[in-house]
Amino acid sequence: MQMKRRPQLATDYYQLSMSNVYIMDDKKDDIAVFDLFARKNPFNGGYMVCAGLEQAIDYLVNMKFNDSDIELLRFNHPELTEEFLAYLREFKFTGELYAVPEGSIIFPNEPILRIKAPLIQAQIIETPLLSIVNHQTLIATKAARIVQAAEGDSVLEFGLRRAHGSEAGLYGARAAIIGGCIGTSNVESEFLIDIASKGTMSHSFILSYPTEYDAFKTYSKYNDNNLILLVDTYNTLESGVPNAIKVFSELKAAGKLPKIYGIRLDSGDLAYLSKETRKMFNVNGLEDAIISASSDLDEYLVRDMKLQGAQIDLWGVGTKLITAFDQPALGAVYKLAQIESDGVVYNKLKVSNDPGKITNPGYKKFIRIYDKDTHKALADLIMLAEEVIDEDKPLTIFHPVYTWKKRVLANYYIREMMVLVMKEGKVFYKTPHILDIQAYLKKEFETMWPATSRFTNPHEYHVDLSDKLWKLKNDLLNQ
Amino acid sequence: MQMKRRPQLATDYYQLSMSNVYIMDDKKDDIAVFDLFARKNPFNGGYMVCAGLEQAIDYLVNMKFNDSDIELLRFNHPELTEEFLAYLREFKFTGELYAVPEGSIIFPNEPILRIKAPLIQAQIIETPLLSIVNHQTLIATKAARIVQAAEGDSVLEFGLRRAHGSEAGLYGARAAIIGGCIGTSNVESEFLIDIASKGTMSHSFILSYPTEYDAFKTYSKYNDNNLILLVDTYNTLESGVPNAIKVFSELKAAGKLPKIYGIRLDSGDLAYLSKETRKMFNVNGLEDAIISASSDLDEYLVRDMKLQGAQIDLWGVGTKLITAFDQPALGAVYKLAQIESDGVVYNKLKVSNDPGKITNPGYKKFIRIYDKDTHKALADLIMLAEEVIDEDKPLTIFHPVYTWKKRVLANYYIREMMVLVMKEGKVFYKTPHILDIQAYLKKEFETMWPATSRFTNPHEYHVDLSDKLWKLKNDLLNQ
Repeated sequence: MQMKRRPQLATDYYQLSMSNVYIMDDKKDDIAVFDLFARKNPFNGGYMVCAGLEQAIDYLVNMKFNDSDIELLRFNHPELTEEFLAYLREFKFTGELYAVPEGSIIFPNEPILRIKAPLIQAQIIETPLLSIVNHQTLIATKAARIVQAAEGDSVLEFGLRRAHGSEAGLYGARAAIIGGCIGTSNVESEFLIDIASKGTMSHSFILSYPTEYDAFKTYSKYNDNNLILLVDTYNTLESGVPNAIKVFSELKAAGKLPKIYGIRLDSGDLAYLSKETRKMFNVNGLEDAIISASSDLDEYLVRDMKLQGAQIDLWGVGTKLITAFDQPALGAVYKLAQIESDGVVYNKLKVSNDPGKITNPGYKKFIRIYDKDTHKALADLIMLAEEVIDEDKPLTIFHPVYTWKKRVLANYYIREMMVLVMKEGKVFYKTPHILDIQAYLKKEFETMWPATSRFTNPHEYHVDLSDKLWKLKNDLLNQ
Repeated sequence: MQMKRRPQLATDYYQLSMSNVYIMDDKKDDIAVFDLFARKNPFNGGYMVCAGLEQAIDYLVNMKFNDSDIELLRFNHPELTEEFLAYLREFKFTGELYAVPEGSIIFPNEPILRIKAPLIQAQIIETPLLSIVNHQTLIATKAARIVQAAEGDSVLEFGLRRAHGSEAGLYGARAAIIGGCIGTSNVESEFLIDIASKGTMSHSFILSYPTEYDAFKTYSKYNDNNLILLVDTYNTLESGVPNAIKVFSELKAAGKLPKIYGIRLDSGDLAYLSKETRKMFNVNGLEDAIISASSDLDEYLVRDMKLQGAQIDLWGVGTKLITAFDQPALGAVYKLAQIESDGVVYNKLKVSNDPGKITNPGYKKFIRIYDKDTHKALADLIMLAEEVIDEDKPLTIFHPVYTWKKRVLANYYIREMMVLVMKEGKVFYKTPHILDIQAYLKKEFETMWPATSRFTNPHEYHVDLSDKLWKLKNDLLNQ
């Protein structure tokens, strides 16, 4: 239904234009290594939550061009040669992918994906990989921040109507669950993530009945399991909550009160209204009624309301989460780190006047170093893939720019952060169930000091370069 | 390829939960009128550019639920009745849609879409219509602002890698073209909008060759039509531009200089670099070389650079456009305005403590009033659909809140802004070619005073209510 999408073409034209040259210039057997990484944590925060790998794999496995794609490209782009178009028609990703598992906490400059593949393949897949990983990592990180602010209360994702189209809503919902939301209103997501979608009623439902009480009463007849009434259509404390209490009390008297019941506040001073509502419920013997709230919430508002003693059990978060409102782009990039041409390996970096923008060369991995007693993460080390750390020996790490800033670590163990996902185009990785990814993220947070994971003014986590990588980089810069 | 989307399910669960009650409570023959509108112009601007209607029609026409949808809903939601699921299986949109054509300039509170349909249908389609129109209208408006800032220079959309997934990139590219961009880097868009995608090379292309000159020279061999060289991989003025000049001069000497040739600046002080580059080109007899620039541009940066005398002919805009970075959600809503139950019509409004959030009741349209001499738009009037204006008589309009603010218009003509799109589920409207929509927007701007259309601190355009609508609203509020 609707226009058939052609995700295989969801790339920037320059990828094709360059690849055309690679084919004609006989560079198609060059092997390239690209790193996909972000240069900064979003939202002025201290971390990122990896997400999107499942869709990245899906894309790489299924990616191929059909006859009508080729026809259109031939028609629109006379500069594309028949040799190149023939290559495209047979295109199949045959490369290698290492990646950080979804739900991992990561930091700037750490490769989220590392691709090693024929140059031309690595080029064509750049844009789709970026749009997938940029999007989901951004939303998962935003969700994690909001869930942190809710301090154990449940958070629901409600943003589809404000998402950048329904696909952004769908994968945004997925990322939100990874970040810790317990559910989403998005019905389509049920196919993707295998969790029932959530929701009860809108203002138009109430308005379509002669009175608010009629609307509540009728809704309750057909919902004996989950009865959350929206109370702000007319006046929250004078009409909505009293009508809800009336319906709940009637159900209670009849022995028919659902297990999950309560109200949703959707406007006004949520902290005040929730406290008043809680009192009214308690006076009426409805102590276990849930108070949920929604209304342009983000991590700062949730924290503020909790500081004000708001009596809210469940937070519905929409616009600010699904669009990552205060920073709607992660800005991850995909940079060439190595190229092998005629059997010779060249390590590559992109120079910049801004030292923070100079990329790290070579075929790399990164590790996390943990304290043996606290099991807290101490620092990360980006290094060449071939390097091995002897955990029995003290490890000296140093700041990649201010190299005199040194730390010697003794009582530690390490973890390799990237795992093999694809080799020769075949998948060697199984994406866990989304709730396992969510649980994995919770464990990740347990390994972080609060100074790193808090969402305002966090401490900068140390991401250093190994001695070997640092030297390689400096040698290249000096050339 | 990739996970099969199910856009028919791209809705909030509460739409199904409410509809289930409508079926059981025998309200499925109630007829509802809903308006889709935004309450505020985005980006602190003075206007919005309508977009998304084509995809909204597509959705309404093709929307249906299949057996596996029904099965999953039955499994996940025990509260959904068999009567409702049987209804869903047969679902077809049979209602009426009036809409503002794409490329129209509109203002807050004006209905972009007006749906009249059985209540239950109107409810289920709410979320998808909102996500489509919110997204495309937002991006089209952002694009129009950037194009305005470029004052006649060409603007290209380059943002796919930062879009919220590839669908957001695709429809975002469409909206950007409506807003006035002359092209996009998005290859998939060629199927949707019938315009060849644009682009030439990235840093990795340059890095994959031993020298910058080699990369340029090789690229030029296979691109004799459009040769835009990226010059900031090593050093723009000391390496990139001199190498580009060398290649262009060689091509010129051989009589092979492409019609479109030039360079792209992608970092650094673009204003300064462009001026220096222009001088270097001119000294070398390359006066017609194009200087294009990209690097986190938005309308403010483009304007700043033009004020600094930047010599840039073509602007590539990515992240800030495709995500509408400074305000990534439009916030349009979909509100019940009327309901007909058992043959009786009830006009409806949503009350709010904030007067600006009280909705307008009734089955409405809106008109634009133009000055007969200047053909500039004077004001818009939201009114009941049945109302007729006698253009031969003076027209008194008044502010909807400060009603003593009156204006009497004499020398005017009017235009109905909404057109019939669907009736009884059938389409009576043909979406124009995207370049015709783009041209239509240009004409729309000609009818606006600069005070309204400028992108900083615009004058607030008057959107008033007809006397009849105002009275209806006040009567309902007094009840």
